[in-house]
Amino acid sequence: MENKVDVEIIKINGNSRDTIIDRVIREYPFTLYLNGQEIITLLCIPENLEELAVGFLISEGFLDSFEEIDKMDLDMEKGLIQIQGDIGEKPLREKLRGKRTITSGCGKGSSFYNVLDSSKSNRIEKIMGLMPGNVIQLMREFNSYSNLFNETGGVHSCALCSTEEVLVHRDDIGRHNALDKILGWGHMNKQNFDDKLVLTTGRISSEMLIKTAKRGVPVVVSRSAPTSLAVDLARELNITLVGFARGNKMNIYTNFPSIDF
Amino acid sequence: MENKVDVEIIKINGNSRDTIIDRVIREYPFTLYLNGQEIITLLCIPENLEELAVGFLISEGFLDSFEEIDKMDLDMEKGLIQIQGDIGEKPLREKLRGKRTITSGCGKGSSFYNVLDSSKSNRIEKIMGLMPGNVIQLMREFNSYSNLFNETGGVHSCALCSTEEVLVHRDDIGRHNALDKILGWGHMNKQNFDDKLVLTTGRISSEMLIKTAKRGVPVVVSRSAPTSLAVDLARELNITLVGFARGNKMNIYTNFPSIDF
Repeated sequence: MENKVDVEIIKINGNSRDTIIDRVIREYPFTLYLNGQEIITLLCIPENLEELAVGFLISEGFLDSFEEIDKMDLDMEKGLIQIQGDIGEKPLREKLRGKRTITSGCGKGSSFYNVLDSSKSNRIEKIMGLMPGNVIQLMREFNSYSNLFNETGGVHSCALCSTEEVLVHRDDIGRHNALDKILGWGHMNKQNFDDKLVLTTGRISSEMLIKTAKRGVPVVVSRSAPTSLAVDLARELNITLVGFARGNKMNIYTNFPSIDF
Repeated sequence: MENKVDVEIIKINGNSRDTIIDRVIREYPFTLYLNGQEIITLLCIPENLEELAVGFLISEGFLDSFEEIDKMDLDMEKGLIQIQGDIGEKPLREKLRGKRTITSGCGKGSSFYNVLDSSKSNRIEKIMGLMPGNVIQLMREFNSYSNLFNETGGVHSCALCSTEEVLVHRDDIGRHNALDKILGWGHMNKQNFDDKLVLTTGRISSEMLIKTAKRGVPVVVSRSAPTSLAVDLARELNITLVGFARGNKMNIYTNFPSIDF
């Protein structure tokens, strides 16, 4: 399925107006079923959908690992995936804790740490010894991949990287979907996350950081801004948070020792 | 409460590195209670929170109008609002249909119309007779308000406008929150929506369009891109959808007759 759709538009530029065919990004409703139960409908770009399903289900705590999945049946025509898994003792969550929902116990300041399943969000102990030049080089490579953005202006991108190279790059209309796709790819390809970087074009909110923290990713880099809660959380978990990484510039918000100046 | 937070960062620019104080946008967990029941925790900028609560509850169908609310108690310290309302026959939804969740009946193409509560999303019949110059002028005024973005790089903005002027402008870390704030303002200030424009800095997905369609807003304008599903939905509902409105340029995606060339 094409991830772009041609539409007829009127293009206005000052006093000129032309009827042309333009491309818009395809927004595709994609429903996840786990052991026969409907979990959620995501609105996404119709590509890398298994990765999205795996990443999402682990992000949201429905699964702990890719190995728990026995079978995945993707039906592009119907816009759904059926996943069968041995989910062990985990009950299927009665109520999905949606994207913007966090537990009520995390209302204030330091206690928002509670939002994390703490068993999976230990503090990062590793010192990465990353040089700013690594980040600059990775962002340069990352930016060169964003063709879909250039064509439609409608997507965010994420990448999972070693310190030396971009391992996988994914686009989506949603920042969260793009992140779940690269994390899903990591799970499906048996990657360790504890020596990797995540790059994103989008802003880093607490929700973005929580997804990476759950996997123990030590470094998160954005072309854009972080929020205060993401900075607090990164500080608490020893995650190196880098924002506004553009050209030779970047802002390092947390865990300064992990950068080797 | 300040909507920005000062943090110490290391700023890298080529070979120079400076430790400076930078401002990041405050991300604030804000929990909504309706008649004593916890509905959701939104992550937002801590300003215009009553508008956000009203806009969100009407967007998601928990309330039909501002008039149903008897009492709102905002507690900034605890990060919550208690709303008492006469919600009549409407049961409190057992399960929140979260932001990215749409009913499973809307999996494919033309039937996604089902996501709308159809009684509140009639086709727009009005011909606005809007001139491109109106849109250009409104966007110019809109852009001049985005100081918070200029300072932190971390927010999206929305505005509710008549054809002549910006009536209200709101920022948030989330596109959806900013939209709920201006719509909430409209409900609280007894505005008609059927002769208004909504402007946004963010991309227009189906979810953004559904929020405006529920109120009968006839024109939605973005500085950025729409998705295919937003274009389909706008076409079906006779909404005028304008994207990439920058300077003297814009792309008109749907309902061409409403623009008076």
